[in-house]
Amino acid sequence: MLRYFSRTLVIFSKTRYLCVSANQSLSLPRKTPFGCLSFRFGVSKASSQSIMENVVTEHREQELLLLSASYDDFEGVIVNMKDAMDPAVFVASLRASISHWRQQGKNGVWIKLPIELANLVEVVVKEGFWYHHAEPKYIMLVYWIPETANSLPVNATHRVGIGAFVMNDKKEVLVVQEKSGKFRGTGVWKFPTGVVDEGEDICKGAVREVKEETGIDAEFVEVLAFRQSHKSFFEKSDLFFLCMLRPLSFEIQKQDLEIEAAQWMPIEEYAAQPFVQRHELFKYFSDICLAKIDGAYAGFAPISTTTSFSAKPGYMYFNTRDFNHHQKSEVEQVAKREGDRVDIDSSSHHQFLAESLRWIDQRCGDQRWLSSKANGLSLDRRGRGRVREAHMPS
Amino acid sequence: MLRYFSRTLVIFSKTRYLCVSANQSLSLPRKTPFGCLSFRFGVSKASSQSIMENVVTEHREQELLLLSASYDDFEGVIVNMKDAMDPAVFVASLRASISHWRQQGKNGVWIKLPIELANLVEVVVKEGFWYHHAEPKYIMLVYWIPETANSLPVNATHRVGIGAFVMNDKKEVLVVQEKSGKFRGTGVWKFPTGVVDEGEDICKGAVREVKEETGIDAEFVEVLAFRQSHKSFFEKSDLFFLCMLRPLSFEIQKQDLEIEAAQWMPIEEYAAQPFVQRHELFKYFSDICLAKIDGAYAGFAPISTTTSFSAKPGYMYFNTRDFNHHQKSEVEQVAKREGDRVDIDSSSHHQFLAESLRWIDQRCGDQRWLSSKANGLSLDRRGRGRVREAHMPS
Repeated sequence: MLRYFSRTLVIFSKTRYLCVSANQSLSLPRKTPFGCLSFRFGVSKASSQSIMENVVTEHREQELLLLSASYDDFEGVIVNMKDAMDPAVFVASLRASISHWRQQGKNGVWIKLPIELANLVEVVVKEGFWYHHAEPKYIMLVYWIPETANSLPVNATHRVGIGAFVMNDKKEVLVVQEKSGKFRGTGVWKFPTGVVDEGEDICKGAVREVKEETGIDAEFVEVLAFRQSHKSFFEKSDLFFLCMLRPLSFEIQKQDLEIEAAQWMPIEEYAAQPFVQRHELFKYFSDICLAKIDGAYAGFAPISTTTSFSAKPGYMYFNTRDFNHHQKSEVEQVAKREGDRVDIDSSSHHQFLAESLRWIDQRCGDQRWLSSKANGLSLDRRGRGRVREAHMPS
Repeated sequence: MLRYFSRTLVIFSKTRYLCVSANQSLSLPRKTPFGCLSFRFGVSKASSQSIMENVVTEHREQELLLLSASYDDFEGVIVNMKDAMDPAVFVASLRASISHWRQQGKNGVWIKLPIELANLVEVVVKEGFWYHHAEPKYIMLVYWIPETANSLPVNATHRVGIGAFVMNDKKEVLVVQEKSGKFRGTGVWKFPTGVVDEGEDICKGAVREVKEETGIDAEFVEVLAFRQSHKSFFEKSDLFFLCMLRPLSFEIQKQDLEIEAAQWMPIEEYAAQPFVQRHELFKYFSDICLAKIDGAYAGFAPISTTTSFSAKPGYMYFNTRDFNHHQKSEVEQVAKREGDRVDIDSSSHHQFLAESLRWIDQRCGDQRWLSSKANGLSLDRRGRGRVREAHMPS
């Protein structure tokens, strides 16, 4: 199911736009909280009746009271309340607006109330709205106009946590004992764990948590495994990512507030703990780490990408080892077909390889070389004396 | 950071318990919304003063008004309002309670208000509380007593989506055109996508979405990659999992509401679409699928596990191909050391192998065989004439 969801646009019709005039303020298009444009106009005032009467013959009373709103791509209506309003006036406006939106065939009605307008929560609920979600500074209420079952999307459903597998050259793993929570007083040595912050990348959250709990600087290597569980915190679901990090410093400075003790511990000793042996999930995690140490296991490594539409930065995680091998072999096959020489000494540079492959595919029949250079990789295309450089992403 | 979070218990002290008596209702311990026990006692009434005066000498007024509450492991207090209450009485109780909790050294105060008590939202906010989160039927407000910065946990931060790579034997991939959203009217053929339901496993959500949008029955194979992005829906973050599914039926019956068209399309044709070629993320996804087709790419496969403490079912996802190879090689090494014969013709049965390895480790020095049988795998231990069966998980 695609799900109804709110990406705004589509403003009031031209007819309606005519209603907004004279003494009413029509601001410039601006960003709504959904990142989209909306026009804003206040509750109509009595003095604009004369203009409106030319346009609207029925529901005159309702027209006077329509709330500022923007529409979304899913026949939804979004009311983003900003200013204080008398609850009685607000209710009258809301009723008139819903009646109007019903006639327009609208579905969902969203009302976002900043916490300063908490006095309006009760009246909105009394009109049949229910809570959709809340953040510290606002609450979002929602209503479904049609008779059909609502297809409104739920809010965020998951919390994201990380566990950090950090090992030094002596095959000692970084472990802690916690002062609170389930492990308090158990004597269990565990990997540093934590919750990814709102808006934080998993790979950055893992590095931050290790630093916060133990003072160790580390760089992110891979997601080795992950676990989804349900009915966890506030009844929400949990995604826990087991991450491998490479330590960049080794002197532990534990955080006193939450951490009872921290140390480097031989991995065998960690794995042999009865708790780890007894609990299937911990045993799996431990076995995966041991496989990783033997070089026999590929996790998902992050690479920086942009989103497809908004060009916002972010990370995608995948098996880069396999991917790179495949791309390299593709390049080699293409080169072989075309009688070219291929010389690639690094298989970890998938972006370069993917680019090279594309480039070669476009130019089949030309003579070309792929070579690795010390300060970045370059793709030399000598057929027509041109050189094309494909630098590694920084 | 471990983060403050609410796993309740710890009830009022015995002294306080004595306050609750005579004409006050003391219910049996019951489950709070946090899955923990709490006692319940109403606002004290005037007629119980005589009893209380024996116990409490100071703060008598406050004692009368204390709200029902339970405590958590993080010095937090949880008020789970159930019954209607006059707002003025409620505010007086709340103030007295906070004063009391402050003396006790408590930190966070949680108030859960069912939607029926929306009339109390405003007064709670006026006391300095802010919104923590809301679900359709309740809102949770929170307050931090100490002067220090609060360490309250955020609510769920991520929405989880899936994209489904489903290919038939003719190397045709299942694609759809959507009726709404960003892709409407673009002519782009894309994999079926969707949002995982509240409490739903990723592997089950992917199968459900494919069935809903196209009518195709499929079984889950692997997560091939995932992508984390931020400031998405309602400003929350997004985790998008690219999943591979194996089709079990092939006749498409598209869902009319959301899907404009659906078909099986040659993978090369899908990959060659300008949209896919132009957008880095889609190009990566497409290249990963192509690598997978060539058998050159291992994703994360799900296996059913239980959580470590509560034994709740769930799934963990990891590179089972690499893991199994490693476990097999471990088994072989152990066997070699011990002069045993090992015969394993399947490397995809990690649970069996892990179990076998453990079993062998426990019994080093015995003679044993590992063999694959048609109807499941069995581990034959012939040293003492015993046979141990380790069936595959269904």
